[in-house]
Amino acid sequence: MGRLTGGDPSLLRRINSAVVLHALRAADSATLTEVTRVTGLSRPTVEGVVEGLIETGLAVESAAEEGAARRQGRPARRFRFRAEAGHLLGLEIGPHRVAAILADLDGRVLGTGFKEITAEAPADERLERLRMTVADTLRRSGVARSSLWAVGVGTPGIVEADGTVRLGTALPGWTGLQLGERLRRSFKCPVLVENDANTAAVAEHWKGAATESDDVVFVLAGLSPGAGSLIGGRLHRGFGGAAGEIGALHLLGREATPEVLLSTTGEPLHPLDEQAVAEVFAHARGGDENARAAVDRFIRRLVHDVMALVLALDPEVVVVGGWAAGLDGVLVPLRQELERYCLRPPRVALSMLGEAAVATGALRLALDHVEEQLFAVESTVTARR
Amino acid sequence: MGRLTGGDPSLLRRINSAVVLHALRAADSATLTEVTRVTGLSRPTVEGVVEGLIETGLAVESAAEEGAARRQGRPARRFRFRAEAGHLLGLEIGPHRVAAILADLDGRVLGTGFKEITAEAPADERLERLRMTVADTLRRSGVARSSLWAVGVGTPGIVEADGTVRLGTALPGWTGLQLGERLRRSFKCPVLVENDANTAAVAEHWKGAATESDDVVFVLAGLSPGAGSLIGGRLHRGFGGAAGEIGALHLLGREATPEVLLSTTGEPLHPLDEQAVAEVFAHARGGDENARAAVDRFIRRLVHDVMALVLALDPEVVVVGGWAAGLDGVLVPLRQELERYCLRPPRVALSMLGEAAVATGALRLALDHVEEQLFAVESTVTARR
Repeated sequence: MGRLTGGDPSLLRRINSAVVLHALRAADSATLTEVTRVTGLSRPTVEGVVEGLIETGLAVESAAEEGAARRQGRPARRFRFRAEAGHLLGLEIGPHRVAAILADLDGRVLGTGFKEITAEAPADERLERLRMTVADTLRRSGVARSSLWAVGVGTPGIVEADGTVRLGTALPGWTGLQLGERLRRSFKCPVLVENDANTAAVAEHWKGAATESDDVVFVLAGLSPGAGSLIGGRLHRGFGGAAGEIGALHLLGREATPEVLLSTTGEPLHPLDEQAVAEVFAHARGGDENARAAVDRFIRRLVHDVMALVLALDPEVVVVGGWAAGLDGVLVPLRQELERYCLRPPRVALSMLGEAAVATGALRLALDHVEEQLFAVESTVTARR
Repeated sequence: MGRLTGGDPSLLRRINSAVVLHALRAADSATLTEVTRVTGLSRPTVEGVVEGLIETGLAVESAAEEGAARRQGRPARRFRFRAEAGHLLGLEIGPHRVAAILADLDGRVLGTGFKEITAEAPADERLERLRMTVADTLRRSGVARSSLWAVGVGTPGIVEADGTVRLGTALPGWTGLQLGERLRRSFKCPVLVENDANTAAVAEHWKGAATESDDVVFVLAGLSPGAGSLIGGRLHRGFGGAAGEIGALHLLGREATPEVLLSTTGEPLHPLDEQAVAEVFAHARGGDENARAAVDRFIRRLVHDVMALVLALDPEVVVVGGWAAGLDGVLVPLRQELERYCLRPPRVALSMLGEAAVATGALRLALDHVEEQLFAVESTVTARR
């Protein structure tokens, strides 16, 4: 066995500890006998490991089962993973709102919160709103800030690995903002910053419209759409974190911006003015020819962008989210055109998580990070068995 | 050690055998002492494994080194991997030619061959040409057909995992052709069929313009461009094998086909008539305004397609190959427009392998397959050490 672990007994202990922790987390609770059976470890090893896990707060003896008293003799002691040993936050910093989701180490949601903000608000004000939202959410859930193990963040823009926003034109003061570093001042745990379409893609795959597929494109549909994609179940960020930023495609042909496309007056709309867009759609429904033509132009553009993503990536499913997904008549032409022109048309689904998608995906990234820490040796273990 | 291998001594032997084989293949030749040191296995184990490898023909005692006689005593015996124990073919089946590359188990090229064919030739004639090319190449290299371990094939179209061409409009009779099955009648070894742009991407990454990068888009530029991409060094086929088939993007807007775009007469060019295209380019160089406008339209279309791929995937490098890559003025505007509109512009390089790219990548796929067989247990080994 020394060979297996490179002669490092602490590595062996860590492997055994990860195996037992994994078994406990997979079950609601388990007896030492059950853990011994599932892990293939010896009884004394399991006893030692569980003792250690209890000391570090990751496991606890669970209350006896209901009805256990009726059985013969003293019931076997049961142990469970302490999901409450730490907590995670998933945050969204968007143009119109900031939001937080708080969860335990099992990813179970304990509290949520959000605050509205104007698209024009400077970065400091936006971050201050976020801080208030986080503080509220923690307080209402009775969770101490010191109990946070990881924080995930979804926000518009191209985000570098260290959390710096390389380019983010959607929000004032966003380009060049060292968002990761700024947020790390508020939290003592790792802070992971990711593009919002990317976190939304992760979220729909985790608990949304794409749980059945590992090859997913999520389109955050708005005036200028962004996209996130999963390939083989893994987030595809691209070499520079810019994958899916399809909005720039039309700049090339010096074509009209979406703001101009959707305008019925000749004056471009404000890029983030969802209200004005909704009005154009309402007018189109009301029979206004001008508005209808504008909506047609807008949908054709969106279809083109999605088509470009689909042809490049060939996903199994396209999930459409973002506020424009809620607009009339976006999904039907998208399906029709993809059916018609794609060599292998993907399934097209509406986002199931809606506006919770970005923060939910950010939470999943935080959870991934923590699981990586807890079960870091798992790949070794898997290969061994 | 029984634990490590799940109590399966033959698995343990296979692991040891793969480890030793790997060590021998990495070195030109090695003594038993050297193999023992590199692998960490015991001397008797190494002796047993090497003996087994010699029996199966995968290893052989190599000739004594020059100058060895001068040393004191009898020189230690040296052993080497027998790269000549098996052979691999990389095949291209294209619109204008079929080609073959023959290599040994180290991927060293032993022979090449090709034959021209017309774009209009029916599938049977094309396959007959291929068979002749293969037979010639084998004969000239003195390699027996029975010595082939794997055959890779690159061809236009969307190719299913079993080698059936799901859609291939570039070649007559290609759509629906069970190409894998047809070729397996000629070879007794595994035949791996892949889209030509995909194999070319693999080739440029292996020994072409993208050896330094694992995130590569290869554009097979022609009248209707196709693309292959590597993400993290792995071929991205897409969920249905259709990733990168960007040519359909313009069908959407009912835009002109490339054949119309490049026409100076109003009559569309034949989609595979490279000669006619070259003439349009020549006329444009000669100052013909009509031809120049046609070339501009063609280049703008190509730039748009590449841009769509780049925005979707965010590669580190774009390699441009295919015949259109050789045309004047394709690369410069491509670089300029990507610089201008991409959030993170990739490096743009010309294919280094040129027309050898497709067959070279097919060879690499065959080699990957064989290595997977030879070193199948390697992941277990790596995790263990």
